Amino acid sequence: MPIRIDPWSAAVPEDYARLMHEFGIESFEKLLARIPEPHYLMRRKIVFGHRDFERVLSAMRRGDRFVVMTGLMPSGRMHVGHKLVIDQLAWYQRQGADIYLCVADLEAYSARSVPFKESKKLAAEEYLANYHALGLDVGRCHVYFQSRSDVVRHLAFLLAKRVNFSEMRAIYGFAGESNISHIFYPMIDVADILHPQLKEFGGPRPTVVPVGIDQDPHLRLARDVAARFQREFGFVLPSSTYHRLLPGLTGEKMSSSKPETAIFLTDSAEDIKKKIKDAFTGGKPTAAEQRKYGGDPDKCRVYELYVYHLIPDDEKLLDLREACKSGAIICGDCKLRAIELMTKFLKAHQAKRKRAEAKAKKLVEKVY
Amino acid sequence: MPIRIDPWSAAVPEDYARLMHEFGIESFEKLLARIPEPHYLMRRKIVFGHRDFERVLSAMRRGDRFVVMTGLMPSGRMHVGHKLVIDQLAWYQRQGADIYLCVADLEAYSARSVPFKESKKLAAEEYLANYHALGLDVGRCHVYFQSRSDVVRHLAFLLAKRVNFSEMRAIYGFAGESNISHIFYPMIDVADILHPQLKEFGGPRPTVVPVGIDQDPHLRLARDVAARFQREFGFVLPSSTYHRLLPGLTGEKMSSSKPETAIFLTDSAEDIKKKIKDAFTGGKPTAAEQRKYGGDPDKCRVYELYVYHLIPDDEKLLDLREACKSGAIICGDCKLRAIELMTKFLKAHQAKRKRAEAKAKKLVEKVY
Repeated sequence: MPIRIDPWSAAVPEDYARLMHEFGIESFEKLLARIPEPHYLMRRKIVFGHRDFERVLSAMRRGDRFVVMTGLMPSGRMHVGHKLVIDQLAWYQRQGADIYLCVADLEAYSARSVPFKESKKLAAEEYLANYHALGLDVGRCHVYFQSRSDVVRHLAFLLAKRVNFSEMRAIYGFAGESNISHIFYPMIDVADILHPQLKEFGGPRPTVVPVGIDQDPHLRLARDVAARFQREFGFVLPSSTYHRLLPGLTGEKMSSSKPETAIFLTDSAEDIKKKIKDAFTGGKPTAAEQRKYGGDPDKCRVYELYVYHLIPDDEKLLDLREACKSGAIICGDCKLRAIELMTKFLKAHQAKRKRAEAKAKKLVEKVY
Repeated sequence: MPIRIDPWSAAVPEDYARLMHEFGIESFEKLLARIPEPHYLMRRKIVFGHRDFERVLSAMRRGDRFVVMTGLMPSGRMHVGHKLVIDQLAWYQRQGADIYLCVADLEAYSARSVPFKESKKLAAEEYLANYHALGLDVGRCHVYFQSRSDVVRHLAFLLAKRVNFSEMRAIYGFAGESNISHIFYPMIDVADILHPQLKEFGGPRPTVVPVGIDQDPHLRLARDVAARFQREFGFVLPSSTYHRLLPGLTGEKMSSSKPETAIFLTDSAEDIKKKIKDAFTGGKPTAAEQRKYGGDPDKCRVYELYVYHLIPDDEKLLDLREACKSGAIICGDCKLRAIELMTKFLKAHQAKRKRAEAKAKKLVEKVY
């Protein structure tokens, strides 16, 4: 898939580049040519880095078994930013991955005091129904709740024997006032990642965890621990990929608790219209100036929506980018187009989601 | 039951008295008159202290429901010192207690690296079979393994949210090199003690944990935590009783790892004979001197066996004590009597234990 030029800006911002160097994360771009039909999030460097993804890639290419593991913390409403991981999961599912989906209700309890009942409700109604509507066949995933998985908690305790407090303090900054659930919690995370490699779940095999770069400490801990228990369990060190996060519409971070920064999967046409109209762009102060000098897509939150989500076709995205830079399209029109595409997407999504609800609820009742 | 004089020496040694004062433990003796048919271990001040036992006593006298909770760590062979707790449990069972018996296999794993399979085998063959043979109807107890109790582990995590590292460090001396299983483990202990008060196990009610005084930190932690979660669970703060430990035959501590210090429940007549013959006594250097000046039962390990186990009848014990002090009996003869009684007891016990094995194994298969 030859592309005229790179239409998605400097997708790896400078601070990511620094972090990659610091953490020893490799560029994902270098693997692209070997990946069968890469997802556009990969082509567009939204998935920009990896650790040991080669072994997952080899399994994928050979048709060998491999695992994709991710967790969801049931603590709020899903916005389009959350969709990023689900898009990747759906892609991996098409590539034959065995997908493990953990409902992190122990984390929600220990970090945000979300009651377990509430977590269960949220997991079904807010998350799994959305996941299914977004193209992930959740019925074919291994879905489980941390609070109900005996295996995960048992493994966590087992593995925790070779991790000491100094390490946890160094990684997570724990101190005297840290509570014991919190201190123990990262071991649950590690067990989430490693348990698909236990004999009863299919044994050792390549595993990839797609995360934001801020999650890398968990991954490094999981790899360290996997290595320490190599002899007992034969764990293959887990791989990871890193994606950059969709920035908020207003310029700040996209956040569930600040509705103006995000478009929620439940937003109405009215919400969408208002939010995109108010979004921060790369345009000039006046339409006239913009027609003359052009806009800057790399600073624009609306363009980001196109890259990340609204225009999957690379050529069409590139056309838009050129139109913006040359001043052929101005922000008002561009926003109208984004509003139209987003409204269409969400309307269809919300209908699919409604249909997926019963399936999600049923699933939640029988999961481990 | 009026007794001529106190036949069991200064049953609460000076250092115990100091510890009681320091920890705020009350004298058990003061409650004796109100206890229905107290066990001789209580009468003889081997059970010497308590914390809040009154509320358990009231329940017992009113015929209300109450819980006795204890744990066994499957890590070695049982000796007569271990019998102390089982004697109490059997007594409580006769008083109508609901008995919870926890197999502390997570502790055995985290503190002594005992594999879980080994724990299971030991629990059935070494512990529960012995318990049953010692007069405790294990079939009527709630027996469970920590590693298999979802409820206990879930509760531990829940409760751990309001305990911080500084507290754990202060109680248990944890430091940077402490492993995370170990740091989390005391919360499992706390959950063991409190879970019988969960709704699904019968709800809040008085609970007593009979322990050696060295276990008091766990009890204080359990009480503190129970108070912090009063609103959510309505926990009644757990009570505790404290017993002194049977000292070793040789003068040092009785220990499974030093066979000469202890009489094991599996010992042969030959073993018993040798161990008691070699035991440390309160006798004089020569038989002639002893006949003239008398012996000192309060220093004698063999007398301790009589007090603790071999002579349940107070009058008979007192007779022996007088005979020792007056020089009417000398150590050789006294030892022969002890050997005879112990051999008789263990022979009968070993036969009962053999019969109890199948029951114990079956029980272990179906416990939670």
